[in-house]
Amino acid sequence: MREFILRALKSKTSPFNVNELANAGRMDIVCDCISTALFTASNVRIDTIIHVILEGPSFPPKLISFFGSELKGLDFDQKSIAEIINQALKQSTNLKLNEEINLGNGIRISKKSFEALVKEKSKTSQLIYLNHKGQDIRIFEFQDNVTFVFGDYIGMPKKTEKLLERIGAKKIKLGPKMLFASHCITIVHNELDRFNFKN
Amino acid sequence: MREFILRALKSKTSPFNVNELANAGRMDIVCDCISTALFTASNVRIDTIIHVILEGPSFPPKLISFFGSELKGLDFDQKSIAEIINQALKQSTNLKLNEEINLGNGIRISKKSFEALVKEKSKTSQLIYLNHKGQDIRIFEFQDNVTFVFGDYIGMPKKTEKLLERIGAKKIKLGPKMLFASHCITIVHNELDRFNFKN
Repeated sequence: MREFILRALKSKTSPFNVNELANAGRMDIVCDCISTALFTASNVRIDTIIHVILEGPSFPPKLISFFGSELKGLDFDQKSIAEIINQALKQSTNLKLNEEINLGNGIRISKKSFEALVKEKSKTSQLIYLNHKGQDIRIFEFQDNVTFVFGDYIGMPKKTEKLLERIGAKKIKLGPKMLFASHCITIVHNELDRFNFKN
Repeated sequence: MREFILRALKSKTSPFNVNELANAGRMDIVCDCISTALFTASNVRIDTIIHVILEGPSFPPKLISFFGSELKGLDFDQKSIAEIINQALKQSTNLKLNEEINLGNGIRISKKSFEALVKEKSKTSQLIYLNHKGQDIRIFEFQDNVTFVFGDYIGMPKKTEKLLERIGAKKIKLGPKMLFASHCITIVHNELDRFNFKN
């Protein structure tokens, strides 16, 4: 199983204008990451889950998760994905901590923190985050269950990096340039596609 | 120099609604490709040019080109890029064949066909297109000037593949899965970034 966790520090947790995604705490980046994680040109990636932790105003944190194996009726474009997120936020205003709503079609929303989620994942999955001092992805030894953690355009707070180290997350690097989170997801998928194809 | 040529068979050549990009002949895909070609998380790629041939209604073909080395004031999000394309289309309704308008800030629009552009590029650059029977990108020998040709979601017409073969374009493959054009651009950039870093 491939899992991605995106921490979106400024992305809104209350309803937003789907025609102004960049102004909704860069919700456009969130939508790009979800699309890139779940879709190839011809298929849904049924072996993939993406979790996004939204931490912007007005009801943070919100965790929205998309399960490739259950996904139905979602189009891959930014606006279609934004409409689903908006709908989920509208339905989840009053969620209490750790409460979850199953929206159907492979999408769930809950009130859960980034820290709680990565701690939970570290127990069942190989946790990985990007760092320029990490091992090159092309020689990294992947396990069957992998979870990649990404920051958004703001990057990962120092405190979070320390937490990831403490719970045993591994560092990898993708190449010489610093890329957007959605581009990183593309490269990670390509590497794992090649790895699975060989093995 | 890295150049990308995207052929967008259905993308509009007359003004469109920037809030409905998927309905403008998948202008969202066009914008994603432009953004991915030109931006890293921290910089503009000054060694990169992307050309998009729009072939949808009502005034095809239109060639819009973005020059990384001259680019100014362009944001990387879909809507900002769509607004620039829309503005360019509004100004170029009456262009005659091979006429060009320089919009400034590294953006030009002209009336030129896909065929004319790839023939022109094949004289000064190593022309490359994606094909599942091609050589693996990781062992391909790149020259200094490379131009990658991509189809959109419809793919490349058979006739075009024949033309590309005739003018000596090389075939490469990126991995086992068929990816969206913008994802392909990410992988090509990553490969060339690694190649330049080593050399």
